[in-house]
Amino acid sequence: MKDVMYIPTLGDMLAARERIAPHVHRTPVLTSRMLNELTGAELFFKCENLQKAGAFKARGASNAVFGLSDEQAKKGVATHSSGNHGTCLSYAAGRRGIPCTVVMPRTAPQAKKDAVRGYGGRVVECEPSTSSREAVFAEVVAETGAEFVHPYNDWRVIAGQATCSAELIEQVEGLDAVVAPIGGGGMVSGTCLTLSNLAPQVKIYAAEPEQADDAARSFRAGHIIADDAPNTVADGLKVPLKELTWHFVRNHVTDILTASEQEIVDAMKLIWKRLKIVMEPSSAVPLATILKNPEAFAGKRVGVIVTGGNVDLDKLPWN
Amino acid sequence: MKDVMYIPTLGDMLAARERIAPHVHRTPVLTSRMLNELTGAELFFKCENLQKAGAFKARGASNAVFGLSDEQAKKGVATHSSGNHGTCLSYAAGRRGIPCTVVMPRTAPQAKKDAVRGYGGRVVECEPSTSSREAVFAEVVAETGAEFVHPYNDWRVIAGQATCSAELIEQVEGLDAVVAPIGGGGMVSGTCLTLSNLAPQVKIYAAEPEQADDAARSFRAGHIIADDAPNTVADGLKVPLKELTWHFVRNHVTDILTASEQEIVDAMKLIWKRLKIVMEPSSAVPLATILKNPEAFAGKRVGVIVTGGNVDLDKLPWN
Repeated sequence: MKDVMYIPTLGDMLAARERIAPHVHRTPVLTSRMLNELTGAELFFKCENLQKAGAFKARGASNAVFGLSDEQAKKGVATHSSGNHGTCLSYAAGRRGIPCTVVMPRTAPQAKKDAVRGYGGRVVECEPSTSSREAVFAEVVAETGAEFVHPYNDWRVIAGQATCSAELIEQVEGLDAVVAPIGGGGMVSGTCLTLSNLAPQVKIYAAEPEQADDAARSFRAGHIIADDAPNTVADGLKVPLKELTWHFVRNHVTDILTASEQEIVDAMKLIWKRLKIVMEPSSAVPLATILKNPEAFAGKRVGVIVTGGNVDLDKLPWN
Repeated sequence: MKDVMYIPTLGDMLAARERIAPHVHRTPVLTSRMLNELTGAELFFKCENLQKAGAFKARGASNAVFGLSDEQAKKGVATHSSGNHGTCLSYAAGRRGIPCTVVMPRTAPQAKKDAVRGYGGRVVECEPSTSSREAVFAEVVAETGAEFVHPYNDWRVIAGQATCSAELIEQVEGLDAVVAPIGGGGMVSGTCLTLSNLAPQVKIYAAEPEQADDAARSFRAGHIIADDAPNTVADGLKVPLKELTWHFVRNHVTDILTASEQEIVDAMKLIWKRLKIVMEPSSAVPLATILKNPEAFAGKRVGVIVTGGNVDLDKLPWN
């Protein structure tokens, strides 16, 4: 068993890739002439919204779940997440046929609870506070002996997310840059892990909402800054960096760019209209920052990670 | 020059495939475990909403445009269509660098006019009546000498649409059936052309809105029935069969199934939610009919043609 602060390696990514191959899609890459003309860059959208369970997090969750010993697997897995990680952990556990418990605030949207249950997972509700979440989660683990799989600060999860850009560089030759949204930093860390080893010439940009710009401020300050309850339409990006993701961000990210709420919603609608895909506000932040910083990307071949597609169709942000 | 009632052959499809390859996408096929569980079938969604210009009609339009002699090409192409065919013909003409004129009712949505112009085509407005459209169109052709490319009753267009199912049977082995929406019958005819030659064991179903069920009634009556101005949310499917498409429908279609407006909208939302793609109401009619007729598809491997993705994001039918 590797320590929690173990830094995953290229070997871990390659092992993850083999391990999760039966459980995840090799997602397609889409392009749009109109979006290229608009940005002056050549954009390649890696569509993790089309991933199993609707998000790239199926990769990391599957790697954690299928890497467990049979003995540990019997006791199941647990996490706290009201977002895609909970759903994806439930998906992966369902594939292995083991128990999964997700601790969620009772105030979380019904659709998120239904998604976890839809894949066979159990939802345990807590009060919407950090102290309640921690207390309830500790109880769950004490009762079940379940393995905790953190949404991003976990080397197995990062090694799993790293398989996404391994596919991308096989699908698109000669990339100059990749832009991925940043919340806790799991996808960005995985991107750093793969590209720093296999394509070190590719610049890595993280994209963040102005209203939840803790990663950008951390990057400039040189240490982790965590905000209390930021508010943004890009609700997948509210969580702060942690030690393991900070390691990758600090060492391998070229820059962290930000966009306003309106810019994010406009970019989201533009992608829906031009690429004909359903994706989350969080996934639109990269295009919003590319449109805002054309000089950084003009004439470049740029990979854009579309992280997820789990959105409430009855509450679209432009309505 | 082949006669207008020439019946396209497998050779025409193969020639089309080679001719249009540089101008169209080989679109991906998506699957969803949840939709399979819901229908009891194995569904393979051929995503022509991700096609160039957002619809399968880029195939037929490109085949017509790139099949023209240089002499004819100089004079350009023309059509009447307020839907995807006009946009796609403009797209194809733009790729060849030749003029394209689309006659549209002045009452057509601004977005449709903008789409034609966005690819370099010219919009000429007529009054919203058949007589005005025919008169204005005749003027355009007299003035320009442009080649008329009918939206579906044209062997070049059908041979182009036929390339879609040629890809599909390469992408998915052992299909038992294919379901495609039917309006004028261009996609269904192309599907018949390819499958009757290359995979005659595959059953071909056409899917139609109850409120525009002229093809279903034609099929049962044994002759073309054309309705006057049917009304349905699936606005791409309002047009009637014509001689050439009737030939294919009559000879090769297993059945024509229908769905109500509410069933179409429900199926559309379900696809958006589960497949994470943006598609038109017309493209949801196949899934609506599969959900309504589970006995015809249970345990079968079924191709579903998602015909297009050009929808007004500000006016979604469930809002």
